[in-house]
Amino acid sequence: MSDEWAILSRVPDILEEYNYLNTSSEVPVVQFEYPENLKNLIDFTIDNGGPREQSEIESIIKDVLHYSVKTGHSNFHNQLFAGVDPYGLAGSWITDALNTSQYTFEVGPVFTLIEDALIKKCLALFGFQDGDGILSPGGSISNMYAMVAARFRALPDVKRTGLANQPTLVAFTSEEAHYSIKKAVHWLGIGIDNLVLVKTDCRGRMIPDELKKSIEAVIESGRKPFFVNSTAGTTVLGAFDPFGRIADICQKYNLWMHIDGCLGGTAILSSNKTYLLAGSERADSFAWNPHKTLGAPLQCSVFILKQKGLLHECNAANADYLFQQDKFYDISYDTGDKSVQCGRKVDALKIWLMFKARGMSGLQALVDNAFDCARYFTEEIRSRSGFRLVLDEYEYTNISFWYIPKKLRVEEEHQDASWWARIYEVTAQIKEHMVKQGTMLLGYVPIPRKNIGNFFRMVVTCHPRPSFDTMRFVIDEIERVGESL
Amino acid sequence: MSDEWAILSRVPDILEEYNYLNTSSEVPVVQFEYPENLKNLIDFTIDNGGPREQSEIESIIKDVLHYSVKTGHSNFHNQLFAGVDPYGLAGSWITDALNTSQYTFEVGPVFTLIEDALIKKCLALFGFQDGDGILSPGGSISNMYAMVAARFRALPDVKRTGLANQPTLVAFTSEEAHYSIKKAVHWLGIGIDNLVLVKTDCRGRMIPDELKKSIEAVIESGRKPFFVNSTAGTTVLGAFDPFGRIADICQKYNLWMHIDGCLGGTAILSSNKTYLLAGSERADSFAWNPHKTLGAPLQCSVFILKQKGLLHECNAANADYLFQQDKFYDISYDTGDKSVQCGRKVDALKIWLMFKARGMSGLQALVDNAFDCARYFTEEIRSRSGFRLVLDEYEYTNISFWYIPKKLRVEEEHQDASWWARIYEVTAQIKEHMVKQGTMLLGYVPIPRKNIGNFFRMVVTCHPRPSFDTMRFVIDEIERVGESL
Repeated sequence: MSDEWAILSRVPDILEEYNYLNTSSEVPVVQFEYPENLKNLIDFTIDNGGPREQSEIESIIKDVLHYSVKTGHSNFHNQLFAGVDPYGLAGSWITDALNTSQYTFEVGPVFTLIEDALIKKCLALFGFQDGDGILSPGGSISNMYAMVAARFRALPDVKRTGLANQPTLVAFTSEEAHYSIKKAVHWLGIGIDNLVLVKTDCRGRMIPDELKKSIEAVIESGRKPFFVNSTAGTTVLGAFDPFGRIADICQKYNLWMHIDGCLGGTAILSSNKTYLLAGSERADSFAWNPHKTLGAPLQCSVFILKQKGLLHECNAANADYLFQQDKFYDISYDTGDKSVQCGRKVDALKIWLMFKARGMSGLQALVDNAFDCARYFTEEIRSRSGFRLVLDEYEYTNISFWYIPKKLRVEEEHQDASWWARIYEVTAQIKEHMVKQGTMLLGYVPIPRKNIGNFFRMVVTCHPRPSFDTMRFVIDEIERVGESL
Repeated sequence: MSDEWAILSRVPDILEEYNYLNTSSEVPVVQFEYPENLKNLIDFTIDNGGPREQSEIESIIKDVLHYSVKTGHSNFHNQLFAGVDPYGLAGSWITDALNTSQYTFEVGPVFTLIEDALIKKCLALFGFQDGDGILSPGGSISNMYAMVAARFRALPDVKRTGLANQPTLVAFTSEEAHYSIKKAVHWLGIGIDNLVLVKTDCRGRMIPDELKKSIEAVIESGRKPFFVNSTAGTTVLGAFDPFGRIADICQKYNLWMHIDGCLGGTAILSSNKTYLLAGSERADSFAWNPHKTLGAPLQCSVFILKQKGLLHECNAANADYLFQQDKFYDISYDTGDKSVQCGRKVDALKIWLMFKARGMSGLQALVDNAFDCARYFTEEIRSRSGFRLVLDEYEYTNISFWYIPKKLRVEEEHQDASWWARIYEVTAQIKEHMVKQGTMLLGYVPIPRKNIGNFFRMVVTCHPRPSFDTMRFVIDEIERVGESL
């Protein structure tokens, strides 16, 4: 073992030294610097110089850690992910060290069978009697897998002929759905004009009657509906579409029903929120990202579909140099030709190890705790005079709200457009102050379509394990910063 | 810090205990078990049980390690990757622990600037004066980025309208190119019938005149050529297409020229093989996978293109909840909307740290050593009576060859179809024996298109640093196993 390996054994120590796991409020979530400033603090450029001493390399690593955002901090609530599950992280480190690809049993014997077991578990969890699946580099690509499979079922010739002389295909999704559906229709040659954004109700759930009307209108126009994306846990409001009623419609019109459960799929692990996913068993396919609120390290996205064999038939290119037919073991374990990728990073070990280490009851406890904290957070926001919820109720662990500074707490008749403009502005200002002070990272979002300006979007995740205290900290901190403006 | 983090600190020790970095021939490359057998040795299923004790979890991890392939072993030559660069692995572990996404400066300040610096370095390396780029989850997706950008340049309306009422687009690639191009035309709605496989010469290089003829024929047929994929380092033979002459043709017909340099791009770091990439500066885009022979851990794929702004214009979906326009820092550093992904794993740190730690001269030494060992290996094969090269010469570090068992070493006039059939069979048998004995993993491949059956494909990589000794071991071991059949 040569000296260059010395750096690797130093990594765990340096990480600890840099508090990457310290979730206490004394440690900043981020040491913010403007981009141009940061470029002066770290030399990012790659010059033509020679090798560096180990001490220099360590110092580069320390700078990387110092100025990076601590997503594992208790006060990081900026994204749909936060923290990291230690078993998931252990799985990541092992995966990195073993450095192999997921395509054949030959080079990934254990990982092939782990992925297989994980897919089977997910099929069972989401109510698919049988089926197939694959791990992909993220929810956007999982959703694309669904759309490609749907297109193949609708027009199998497209694999060979392309779309040029085929009927115009049309996909449907709700106006609150993730933008990856828009990127998918672009990449896959369907076109953004052929993606219908179905209206949602006041809580952000797709309105089935609107879906039906849209489908009828598309058929009327001579185009061919083929795919409906429904969402389990929308990105902003955390809404769950009514899957049963959508399934009825998809069945009637013979359309592929996909559920983008990248965010909300995690509810299936809870003790009393699984009703949110009722009807998922009627979908043709489902995408779930354990790397979101559940805390598997990025990237970890599961795509499953009900029809066995379709994934292979649809995606296979039959490359003889990789998938030799005269191997001495059962080549049905070579999963590579189901994939749009060739080399494919092993993402299964992280979440499989989390399942193995925590068991179903351990994962359930984590998910239940997140829901409990989200409920507490919602109640606390509701009870404080300086805050206002965007919606009356929340189904998932996303909670949207505004902070109203003291001097703006006026009678409702005075809450006109300029008052709201000020609230939206304050939201962005509070965020800026918190980032610059490094005390908290919390996202804000507008919904221009619904004519709503900036509001805070709190997302309660499983890691680092939230508590009523960490929830109160969020609210107190916004009050503190808000009053200082 | 709760107890559950204890597992993480054990990971480096367990890895060491399991010899994942031990490259000596006394340690097996793989402890092979048939799939059904392996299922009895490890319980892959995810049951409904509760949490496990740390000792049980450690034992699961040890089983994973025991039955996994040691891709870091000196006798692993099965894929286009092998080994892992320790600085790259350190970068991976840090990335996993910091667990963030690459989409905004806000959550990835350091990583955003690292990716930016890396893209700039790659632009310079491959001779692009200016441009843009992104890291993707692998070469297949990098090649898809190229095709999507080309389609957008050829028919910008397609983003909106889809392909249904557009001219039939046609892409070109060589018959020796990677199958990801075939998967790309399928996914992107071009269709496999609209991918022309251009003939190659005896060494596997695209024949420019054949490309020209194919383009003319497609235009004649009323379809619209838009994209030429050329290859720097083909998967099997390691061939480099003649980029200058292909560029002339692309210029003449106004076609997007992409170079799939996923494998061969690494030659740019060598001291005397950069001529292989002559003409790369004339391409519109280039894909390079440092995770192949260079030894960055999977996944690490760089996509660059010459036209600034195109990547964003082509792929943007303008999601207001993620890419707010009223941020307090320069949002041009938010790269997320260039990407087809939303959450995007940080892949830049690994290769950036390799550049930083080794410097250009350190990387050059690694690459030069791989080329030297490949040359030595080729000479050694040429000089031994029991071996035969598939080609006279090799441009890259892939060397294809047959082993001829003693009793089959006959005069050329007796080398008929049945003799060859036996050679092809022996190739697969030797592989099977080596795997089962765990002594070596070396791939074999046929090229049915050229009517060639199984031959060994040796790929010399940068890690674990090869030597003339490790090269000789490969040949000696094939002789040993071959004679025992």
